[in-house]
Amino acid sequence: MRTLFTTLGKQENDVSDIHTCFELSHRDGFWLDIEQPNDDDYNLLEHVFKFHPLTIEDIKHQNQRPKLDEYTDYNFAVLFQATWENETIVPLEHHLFVGPTYLVTVHLEPSPPIKELQDRITRSPELTKSKPAFLTYLVIDTLVDASFPVLDQLDDTVDALEDDITDKASPDSLNRIYHLKHSVTELRRLFGAQRDLFQKLITHGVTLQQEDMTLYYRDVYDHIVRQYETVDSLRDLLTSAMDVYLSTVSNRLNRTTTTLAVIASIFLPLSFLTGFYGMNFTYLTAILETPYAAFWVGVATMVASVVFQIYLFRRRGWI
Amino acid sequence: MRTLFTTLGKQENDVSDIHTCFELSHRDGFWLDIEQPNDDDYNLLEHVFKFHPLTIEDIKHQNQRPKLDEYTDYNFAVLFQATWENETIVPLEHHLFVGPTYLVTVHLEPSPPIKELQDRITRSPELTKSKPAFLTYLVIDTLVDASFPVLDQLDDTVDALEDDITDKASPDSLNRIYHLKHSVTELRRLFGAQRDLFQKLITHGVTLQQEDMTLYYRDVYDHIVRQYETVDSLRDLLTSAMDVYLSTVSNRLNRTTTTLAVIASIFLPLSFLTGFYGMNFTYLTAILETPYAAFWVGVATMVASVVFQIYLFRRRGWI
Amino acid sequence: MRTLFTTLGKQENDVSDIHTCFELSHRDGFWLDIEQPNDDDYNLLEHVFKFHPLTIEDIKHQNQRPKLDEYTDYNFAVLFQATWENETIVPLEHHLFVGPTYLVTVHLEPSPPIKELQDRITRSPELTKSKPAFLTYLVIDTLVDASFPVLDQLDDTVDALEDDITDKASPDSLNRIYHLKHSVTELRRLFGAQRDLFQKLITHGVTLQQEDMTLYYRDVYDHIVRQYETVDSLRDLLTSAMDVYLSTVSNRLNRTTTTLAVIASIFLPLSFLTGFYGMNFTYLTAILETPYAAFWVGVATMVASVVFQIYLFRRRGWI
Amino acid sequence: MRTLFTTLGKQENDVSDIHTCFELSHRDGFWLDIEQPNDDDYNLLEHVFKFHPLTIEDIKHQNQRPKLDEYTDYNFAVLFQATWENETIVPLEHHLFVGPTYLVTVHLEPSPPIKELQDRITRSPELTKSKPAFLTYLVIDTLVDASFPVLDQLDDTVDALEDDITDKASPDSLNRIYHLKHSVTELRRLFGAQRDLFQKLITHGVTLQQEDMTLYYRDVYDHIVRQYETVDSLRDLLTSAMDVYLSTVSNRLNRTTTTLAVIASIFLPLSFLTGFYGMNFTYLTAILETPYAAFWVGVATMVASVVFQIYLFRRRGWI
Amino acid sequence: MRTLFTTLGKQENDVSDIHTCFELSHRDGFWLDIEQPNDDDYNLLEHVFKFHPLTIEDIKHQNQRPKLDEYTDYNFAVLFQATWENETIVPLEHHLFVGPTYLVTVHLEPSPPIKELQDRITRSPELTKSKPAFLTYLVIDTLVDASFPVLDQLDDTVDALEDDITDKASPDSLNRIYHLKHSVTELRRLFGAQRDLFQKLITHGVTLQQEDMTLYYRDVYDHIVRQYETVDSLRDLLTSAMDVYLSTVSNRLNRTTTTLAVIASIFLPLSFLTGFYGMNFTYLTAILETPYAAFWVGVATMVASVVFQIYLFRRRGWI
Repeated sequence: MRTLFTTLGKQENDVSDIHTCFELSHRDGFWLDIEQPNDDDYNLLEHVFKFHPLTIEDIKHQNQRPKLDEYTDYNFAVLFQATWENETIVPLEHHLFVGPTYLVTVHLEPSPPIKELQDRITRSPELTKSKPAFLTYLVIDTLVDASFPVLDQLDDTVDALEDDITDKASPDSLNRIYHLKHSVTELRRLFGAQRDLFQKLITHGVTLQQEDMTLYYRDVYDHIVRQYETVDSLRDLLTSAMDVYLSTVSNRLNRTTTTLAVIASIFLPLSFLTGFYGMNFTYLTAILETPYAAFWVGVATMVASVVFQIYLFRRRGWI
Repeated sequence: MRTLFTTLGKQENDVSDIHTCFELSHRDGFWLDIEQPNDDDYNLLEHVFKFHPLTIEDIKHQNQRPKLDEYTDYNFAVLFQATWENETIVPLEHHLFVGPTYLVTVHLEPSPPIKELQDRITRSPELTKSKPAFLTYLVIDTLVDASFPVLDQLDDTVDALEDDITDKASPDSLNRIYHLKHSVTELRRLFGAQRDLFQKLITHGVTLQQEDMTLYYRDVYDHIVRQYETVDSLRDLLTSAMDVYLSTVSNRLNRTTTTLAVIASIFLPLSFLTGFYGMNFTYLTAILETPYAAFWVGVATMVASVVFQIYLFRRRGWI
Repeated sequence: MRTLFTTLGKQENDVSDIHTCFELSHRDGFWLDIEQPNDDDYNLLEHVFKFHPLTIEDIKHQNQRPKLDEYTDYNFAVLFQATWENETIVPLEHHLFVGPTYLVTVHLEPSPPIKELQDRITRSPELTKSKPAFLTYLVIDTLVDASFPVLDQLDDTVDALEDDITDKASPDSLNRIYHLKHSVTELRRLFGAQRDLFQKLITHGVTLQQEDMTLYYRDVYDHIVRQYETVDSLRDLLTSAMDVYLSTVSNRLNRTTTTLAVIASIFLPLSFLTGFYGMNFTYLTAILETPYAAFWVGVATMVASVVFQIYLFRRRGWI
Repeated sequence: MRTLFTTLGKQENDVSDIHTCFELSHRDGFWLDIEQPNDDDYNLLEHVFKFHPLTIEDIKHQNQRPKLDEYTDYNFAVLFQATWENETIVPLEHHLFVGPTYLVTVHLEPSPPIKELQDRITRSPELTKSKPAFLTYLVIDTLVDASFPVLDQLDDTVDALEDDITDKASPDSLNRIYHLKHSVTELRRLFGAQRDLFQKLITHGVTLQQEDMTLYYRDVYDHIVRQYETVDSLRDLLTSAMDVYLSTVSNRLNRTTTTLAVIASIFLPLSFLTGFYGMNFTYLTAILETPYAAFWVGVATMVASVVFQIYLFRRRGWI
Repeated sequence: MRTLFTTLGKQENDVSDIHTCFELSHRDGFWLDIEQPNDDDYNLLEHVFKFHPLTIEDIKHQNQRPKLDEYTDYNFAVLFQATWENETIVPLEHHLFVGPTYLVTVHLEPSPPIKELQDRITRSPELTKSKPAFLTYLVIDTLVDASFPVLDQLDDTVDALEDDITDKASPDSLNRIYHLKHSVTELRRLFGAQRDLFQKLITHGVTLQQEDMTLYYRDVYDHIVRQYETVDSLRDLLTSAMDVYLSTVSNRLNRTTTTLAVIASIFLPLSFLTGFYGMNFTYLTAILETPYAAFWVGVATMVASVVFQIYLFRRRGWI
C-alpha cells in the first residue's frame, strides 16, 4: 500500500501512475510510504529509484540491525520501534531511503505512529515547513518517540513484578522476570545500535538534504540515549529482581523451617512425657496410682514444658 | 516567578517591564531566574530572548538528560540536583541559558540552593566579580555542590541498612535495598551524563562568555566526578548488601535447622526408650516389676542418652 | 583435494598440472579451494604461490584466532564458521589467501557451505560477475552466513533448556547450561575477533583487488555484528538461566519442607494425644473407663486438632 | 609545622623568616613541607606563593580526588597514600605544589613516609642530585611506594579471611568481607584516578621543571598500575569470597539436615515398633506373653531396622 | 650463570673475559643470557652495558609488570611465562635488554624454554638467520609460546573440577575453585599487560634493530591475544563453576530434605495409629479384645496408610 505526500502536504493515495507523480512532486520534494510491499513495489524501488539490490534484500529478509548506509545519491537507514504485544516486546522494523528531495519509508506491518503522523500532516501541512529535510526529521522523530510509551509500560511491569515477588515469589514470577530480561536484552541491543547510528549522523551531518538539521537530530539523539539508558537500568533492575526472588524464597524457607522447629520443640517433649508416664515399670505405676495429685503433677510437667518452650521461642523472636 | 540580578548584585523583583530592565542591565550582564514558568515566561524566552523552540519544548516536557547544546549566540544546559524526599532520591531538573552577557535559569519547582545563592549575592555582591561568566560559574557550582549532602545521607542510609541486615534480615530490608538500588542506578545515570557534559565543557571551553573560566570548571568537574564515583561505589555496595542479605538468611536457616536437629536428636531416642519400656511383652513387664532398680536403670538409660547427645553436639559446635 | 574455479565459472577438478591451469586462469582470475591439504598442497602454497612460511605454519597448527594479515602482494585471513555437532558447537577454521587476481581457500575438514557455493557457481556462473573481487566476497559472505542456522538452533536449545529448568531443574540441566555457556563463551570470542577483522577491512578497504567492494563488506560486517550480539545475549541468558535454576531448586526445597512441616504439625499433636490417653495414671484410666463418652471425647479432641491445623495451613497458603 | 630542604640537602627548621630563606634557597631550589597547616601557613601559600584560592580551598576541605591541575607557573597535585588503621584502610591525602625551582607539600596529618624521606635526605644529601625536579620525583615516588606494604597486608588479610570462611563461616566473617570490600572499592577508586593522573603526566611531561624525568615517572606509573591491578584483583577475590561464604553455609546446612534425617530415619521406625508392641489388641498381647522368644524377636526387628538404615546411609555416603 | 651466543650460533660459556667476547661478537651480534645474576653480573649490566639504574633495580626487586621501556640506545622489556607448580600457577619473570646488535636476557630462576632454545640453536645455528633481530624474535616467541602447555593443563583442571563438582560438591572443590580463580585472575592481569605491550610494539615497530620484524611480532601478538582470551574464558568458567557448586549443594539439600519428609510421612502416621490402638479407653480396649479381626483390621489400617503415602510420593516424583 503506497501513500505519497509532497512537502506541501498534498496526499495522493492513487499512486499507480507513479512516474507522473514523481515529476510533479520532484519540484517540491515528497514522502512515499510503502506498507507491506509487494513485488510491484520492490520493482519500483529497484528499477525506478535505482536503489542498491543489497538494500532491497535487507527489506525482504527483515531482521536487520539499526544501521545507516551511505550510497552516492541516497542514504539507507533501518530503524526500530518497540511495541508491546501480549506482555512481550516486539520490535517493528522500518526501512528509510533518504534522497536529496525525497524520503521513502518501507515497513512490512502497519505502523500506527506513521499513520498518525500522516494524519497530522494532512490536518496541518505547515508542519513540514515545505522542506524534504524537515519531513525526514518528522518521520524519524515520530518513529523514535513511539518507543517511549512502551518503555513506560515496561517500567510499570517491572515495578509490579517486584511487588509481586516480595508478596508471593511464585515460580510464575520467576518465569516472567526471565522472559522480560530476554526482551530487555534484545531492546538494549537495538537501542544501542540506534544510538551509535544517530551519533554518526550528528557527527557527519546528513549531507544529502541541504538543510542544516543538526539541532533537530541532536534532540532525537538525546531521546534515543534516554531510551537506551532506561533499558539499561531496567536490565539491571531485573537482575536485582532475580536476586530478590531468591532471597525471598530463602526467607520463606526459613519461616517454614522455623514453624517446623516450633512444632517439633513443643510436641516431641510432650510425647516423651506421655510416653514416660505410660511406661510399664511397677514402681512408676505404683506412684501414678495416687488418685489426684500424681495426674495433676504429670499434667503440670507438660504445661511447664510448653510454657518454657514458648518463653524460649519468644526470646529468639520465633513467635 | 522571576528574579533578576545584575552582576553588580542589584536584585530587581519587579520584572514586569522586562524590556527596560534588559536595556539597563545589558551593560552589566544579568541573571534571570524563572521559577514555575507560566505561559508569559515561555513567551519571554521564545520571543524576547529568541531561544530555539526545541529548548522551550525541553523545559515544558521536563524529564530530559543532563546536556549542553550549543546554539549560535547562547548555550542551553540541563543540570540535575539530587534531593532527598521521604527516603527516596528525587532529581530536580534545572534549565540554563547562557548568553554572552546574561544567564537565564528555569526550574519548575522551588530550588533551595538557588534561593540560598541569591541571598548570598544580595548580602555580598562582590561574589560575582561583576562578570556574567563568574555569575554563571557560581550558579553551576551551587547546583552541583547541592548534591553532596544527599550523597552523604545516602551513604549513611546504606551503612545503616547493612547493620540492619546482619542484625535482622527482614524482608523489609530487602525491599529497601532494592529501592535504594533503583534510585542509585538512576542517579548514576544522571551524574554520568553530567560528568560527560563537563568534560566537553572543559575541553571546548565556554566560548560565549569571554572570561577564561577553565580553572573553575575543572574544579566543578572534579566534584562531579567524585559524585559519580561515590554513586558508583554505592551501587556496588548495594549489590554486595543483597549478597550479604542472602547469606545472612541462609545462616539463620542453618541455625534454625540446627535447633530442630538438636531437639529431634534428644527427644526421638527418649521417646523410643519410653516406648520400649511401655511394650506389652510379658518377659519385659516381668523384669520391670522389680520394684526400684528397674525404674532407675530405665531412667539412667534416658539420662545417658541425653548426656551422650549433648557431648556430640558440643563436639560439633552446635550448642 | 583441490577444486579450481575461474571467475567465468569454469570448474577444473583435475588440477595436477597446476602451472598450466594458472597461466590459463590468470587472465580471468580464479578461486582454488584446497580441502584436507597434504604435503604436496603445502609445497604448492609455499613455493608456487610464495606464501609466507608463517601462514603455512598457521594452517598446519590450526587453532588460530580470526585475523587478517596483510602481506605485500596478498592478504591472509582466518575465518571461523560455527557448526553444531552432537549438542555442542564446533568452530570450523578456514584459511583464505586473497591475491590481486585469485583467491585460495584452505580447510582441513569438508566445508558444506563452500561445497554448496561451488554448486551454485557451477549452475549459474554469472554470480561471480567475472571479477575475482566479487568471487572473494561470495566466499566470505557464504562462510559468515553459514553460522546463522547454528545460532538459531542454539537459541532454540537455550529456550528449551529454560522451560526444562522451571519444569524439572534436574542436575543434568545444570550440566547442560554449563557446557552451553562454555561453547557460547568460545563462540563470542571468535565472533568478537571476526567483527574487529571486518571493521578493519571496511575502514582500510581491500586494497589488492581493485573493485570497490565496501558496500558489500559493510553488509557482511552487519551480519557479523548481529551474530556477535546474538551470542552475547545468549551468554547473558545462560547466566540468568543458572540463576533461575538455583531459584527453582530453592523453591522446590521450600515446597518439600512445607510438606514436612504439614505432616509433622498434624501427626505430632495427634501422637501426643494418643500418648496422653495411654498414660498409666489411675485417675486418668478411671475417667477413660466411662463406656462411650470418654472415647468419643478423646477422638473429638484429635479431630479438632487436625481441623484446627488445616485451618491454620489454609490461612498461610500451605495447602 | 614547616620543614624546609634545599636541593643541597640543607634542612632549615626555623622557617619563620621565610622571605630570607626563599631568597637564599631560590638559587638552589627547595622543598617546603607543611604539616597540619594553620592560618599562617595558608596565608603564606596564598599571598607569598600566590597559589590559586581554589587550591587553598581544596587543602582546607580535604576529601578531594587524586588530580593534577596545571596553573601558569606551577602545578597542583593531590596524591593519596593508603594506611592501615584498626583493620581498616584509611587513605591519607597529600597536596603538592610543584614550581620551576621548588616543591611545597601540605598534609593535615603526620606522614611517616615523608618523615622517613627527610631523614634519608639529611643523611645522604646527594640523593637529590641537586635538582628540584629530582627532589619532586623522590617525594612522589616515596608517597606512591608507601602504599605497597598496606596492599601486602590487605592481601594477607583476604587470604586469612578465606581460610576462616571455609573453616567457620561465622556471620562475623561476612561482616568483615563486606567492610573490606568497602575499603577496597574506595582504594580502587583512588588508585584509578592516580593512575590516570600519572598517565597524563607521562604523556604531557612535567613542563615546568626543565629536567626530563619521563624515565623516572614511567617507573612510578608502573608501580601505580600494579597497585591498581592488585586492588582490582582483591575486589574480585572478595566477591568470590562472598560466594564461597554462601556455598559454605549451604554445605553446612546440608550436613545439619543430613544429621537430622539420619536420626529421624533411625528412631521413627524404632518408635513405631515399640508402639506396635505396646498396642492393646488382645490377640497381640496374647502372642507377646510367650515368655522369651517373643521379646527377643521384637528386639531383633528393632536391631534389623537400625542395621538396614545404617546400610542405606552408608550407600548414600551420609555417614 | 652467563651464556653467550653469537648470531652465527657459536656458544661461548666461558664469558669471564667479557670485553674480548664483546669486541669479537659485536660484528655478528650476540645474545647474552644471565641466570641467577650475582653482583658481578649487575656490575656488567650497569657499567659495561651502561643500562639505566632503574632497570637494574627492576631486575633486583622482581615482581614487575610486563612492560616495554624505551631508552635512547636500547629497549628494556619484562616478560612473564606461566609455569605450573604443585597445582598452582607460578609466573616466571624474564628481563630483556634489546640493543641494536645484541640481546641480553636476565632471569633469577632456571628457565627451561630458554635452555631448550639454546640447545636448538646449538644444533641448528641457521635458525638465527645471522641477524640479531631474528634472534630476539626467537627468544620472545619461545617465552610466549611456553605458556601454552600451562593453559592447556589449566583448561583440563577446570574441566575435571567441574565434573568433580556435579559429582561430589565437596568443600575441597570449592577451595580449589577459589584458588584457581586467584591464579587465573593474576594470569589475566599479566597477559593483559603483555598484550598491550605487544600491541605497542607492533604499532611503533622495533626501531633499534633494523630488520623489519613486524610480520613476526604480529604472529607473537596473535598468540598472546589467544592466551589472554583463554585465561579470560577460564575466569568466566570458574565463576560459573562456583554457581554450579552452589546449585549442586542446594539440589543435594533438596534430596536430603525429601528423604526426611518421606520417612516422617510414613512413620509419623504409623506411630499415631500404634498410639491410638494403645490408648486406655475401656471402650476401645473392649473392641480390641475381639480375638483376630480387630488386630488384622488394625494392621490393615497401617498398611493402607503406607500404601497411600507411597502412592502420593510417586505422584510427586519423590521416589
